[in-house]
Amino acid sequence: MADPTKSPPLTRPSVIAAHESIKPYIHYTPVLTNTTLDDLASKPQSASALADTPWAGQTPANPKVRFYFKCENLQKIGAFKARGAFHALKRLMAEEGWEEGGGREKGVVTHSSGNHAQALAFAARTMGIPAYIVMPTISTPTKIAATKGYGATVIFSGSTSTEREAVVETVIKDTGARLVPPYDHPDIMLGQGTLGIELQEQAEEIMSAAGRKGNGLNAIITPCGGGGMLSGTAISCEETGIHVFGAEPEFEGGDDCKRGLEQGNRIESVKTLTIADGLRTPVGAYPWTVIHDRKLVRQMFSVTEEQILKAMKLVLERMKIVVEPSAVVGLATALYNEDFRALVEKEGGAEGWDLGVVISGGNTSVEAIAKMFSVGEKHGERHEGVVGLDGKRVVENVAG
Amino acid sequence: MADPTKSPPLTRPSVIAAHESIKPYIHYTPVLTNTTLDDLASKPQSASALADTPWAGQTPANPKVRFYFKCENLQKIGAFKARGAFHALKRLMAEEGWEEGGGREKGVVTHSSGNHAQALAFAARTMGIPAYIVMPTISTPTKIAATKGYGATVIFSGSTSTEREAVVETVIKDTGARLVPPYDHPDIMLGQGTLGIELQEQAEEIMSAAGRKGNGLNAIITPCGGGGMLSGTAISCEETGIHVFGAEPEFEGGDDCKRGLEQGNRIESVKTLTIADGLRTPVGAYPWTVIHDRKLVRQMFSVTEEQILKAMKLVLERMKIVVEPSAVVGLATALYNEDFRALVEKEGGAEGWDLGVVISGGNTSVEAIAKMFSVGEKHGERHEGVVGLDGKRVVENVAG
Repeated sequence: MADPTKSPPLTRPSVIAAHESIKPYIHYTPVLTNTTLDDLASKPQSASALADTPWAGQTPANPKVRFYFKCENLQKIGAFKARGAFHALKRLMAEEGWEEGGGREKGVVTHSSGNHAQALAFAARTMGIPAYIVMPTISTPTKIAATKGYGATVIFSGSTSTEREAVVETVIKDTGARLVPPYDHPDIMLGQGTLGIELQEQAEEIMSAAGRKGNGLNAIITPCGGGGMLSGTAISCEETGIHVFGAEPEFEGGDDCKRGLEQGNRIESVKTLTIADGLRTPVGAYPWTVIHDRKLVRQMFSVTEEQILKAMKLVLERMKIVVEPSAVVGLATALYNEDFRALVEKEGGAEGWDLGVVISGGNTSVEAIAKMFSVGEKHGERHEGVVGLDGKRVVENVAG
Repeated sequence: MADPTKSPPLTRPSVIAAHESIKPYIHYTPVLTNTTLDDLASKPQSASALADTPWAGQTPANPKVRFYFKCENLQKIGAFKARGAFHALKRLMAEEGWEEGGGREKGVVTHSSGNHAQALAFAARTMGIPAYIVMPTISTPTKIAATKGYGATVIFSGSTSTEREAVVETVIKDTGARLVPPYDHPDIMLGQGTLGIELQEQAEEIMSAAGRKGNGLNAIITPCGGGGMLSGTAISCEETGIHVFGAEPEFEGGDDCKRGLEQGNRIESVKTLTIADGLRTPVGAYPWTVIHDRKLVRQMFSVTEEQILKAMKLVLERMKIVVEPSAVVGLATALYNEDFRALVEKEGGAEGWDLGVVISGGNTSVEAIAKMFSVGEKHGERHEGVVGLDGKRVVENVAG
């Protein structure tokens, strides 16, 4: 990887510079609004919805929310990861001596079986650089095919991080390829943060088109896995007055960033099989400096697996866009987390909040959706509640 | 209904006037392009893909196609039907003596359990007019709730068309409500045709932004059920030089418009349980005058259930938007129907065609998607082929 100590400072102007640098390669993704979801968020949850939660018996909060959904599921390769990959690559290519030292021929390497693998493969192909992606042998054939489809060389490893890293070391030794990590690097963080700049601009345009005057967004909430996007977004909001929040799955301790902030120390290892599979990683050391040390993230919230599925169903059926489970933890927080909702009620008051919500990616499959929402199957019981929620949406389209 | 003989003439200027009239109430829906789908359409199908088709053994066509997807799944109420409903209502309201005769209090009525029910309910609520929707008692509770959710009064009937129409007659007698039919009326056709005007404008903008000069779209293909949208789109293209094609499901004779054109007579009754449930109706008498008599639709094509599912999977996974099966019959034709593909190859030549494709609606549910794509379930076998097609798309999003 490019020497992190030579990265630009983690400031808003650096994010803006990163945006200029990657603009030609990425989509300026749309921001969608949705009256149905605004209405749903802007009324109190029912007492029965809170029955089995930490807020049972409390008066439900009554916030007023207007959502601005930043649709990174419509980004190149189907996720925001394209931003960081392009920025990291551009920075690497600008490094002194890189070209002369044969950097272009030696290429880049990473280990990932998810969106970062495809993002790096795609960015490298765009730049005409070879990419080596280390993937566990147990990866599904479609994932392997996807990465190869973007022109990368796939190299197999065992599935533990030690095994993967050993193979990466070998690749580096054999090829001279440079490592591009998925999140724990300033260049990646600045790249992901570019979505925050766009979202700020777009929300202001939407408000202005609607004849509303104001100061733009009150807050942005993003998913948090390794923390690259959350910290990048937080940097993009520095000194704007926009509050930045992070959302995590609570399942099996997936809320490591939240717990880390509570105990004052970064949690370095997580083992969760949350359905939000892009968020199974612990927050990285560089993102932590932004989230914790510099306090650019105001607060972390967590949601349950059921809440993630409910939010995913709403996005698919009401917004008509395809999202992966990780993408909706921010929306799930705004809809179902009473701590967050009470905060919005208190600070937003009668006027309410304009809330940016990052929809991080849409890389799923119809088979995966089928598994999640098949009634009577493994996830069936969780899903019963989801069906009950949906009283307003037609299921089929019949004659006429 | 408003007297059809007093409707504006079925001409392009009338569609443009309809557009002006309904613009404030509808979304100017986005047009999406997609390189992956362009590439897929622009290479020959494999010989094995043609094995069990009428084209077995033939050399597969090799057309060049650039798609422009008109996303009516993102329209109000999730389907293009909002256009026709608003236009029919505006026309009715402008009728001489309507207001004075108590039209606003008497309201409107239709029978539908699909998108038209919601479209009319929504349009009527927007205009402050009561709406009565006759639905079969066997309608699913979610459909009933959806229609009630838009403020309509739901009245139950038996499920045959005779039973439905009898109840409509009773409602008219009791309330004085006016009938707004789903497709077989000039006002509805002109309303649906407004999507054609937008698509033409948007495609030209996209080409111009890409620095391409030209004459806009070569052709548009739309789904055909009752034919309101197909005929309206055809009218919107009159004298533009844009070819208009229709697409139908062939399952159990769902391709009634195609068969009708072949035999020179409209087929007035259809009984199909095609998965494309919005297209189970025979083409209506008014649309037929445009499609057949005036020859504004150049040709009809049909696709199989399997091809519809394959196209639906591609749209969900590659374009990341949610569609109902009826919405993708146009795309399925462009990807899989060799008659259509050979035509594009012949007429488009090396330069290829800019092809507008109407994505008509997105009213489905995650449960319905689950049913369609659950491997090993009822639709499982069909789906095996779909999985095989998808070698390039990642299934899950994992750490990183």
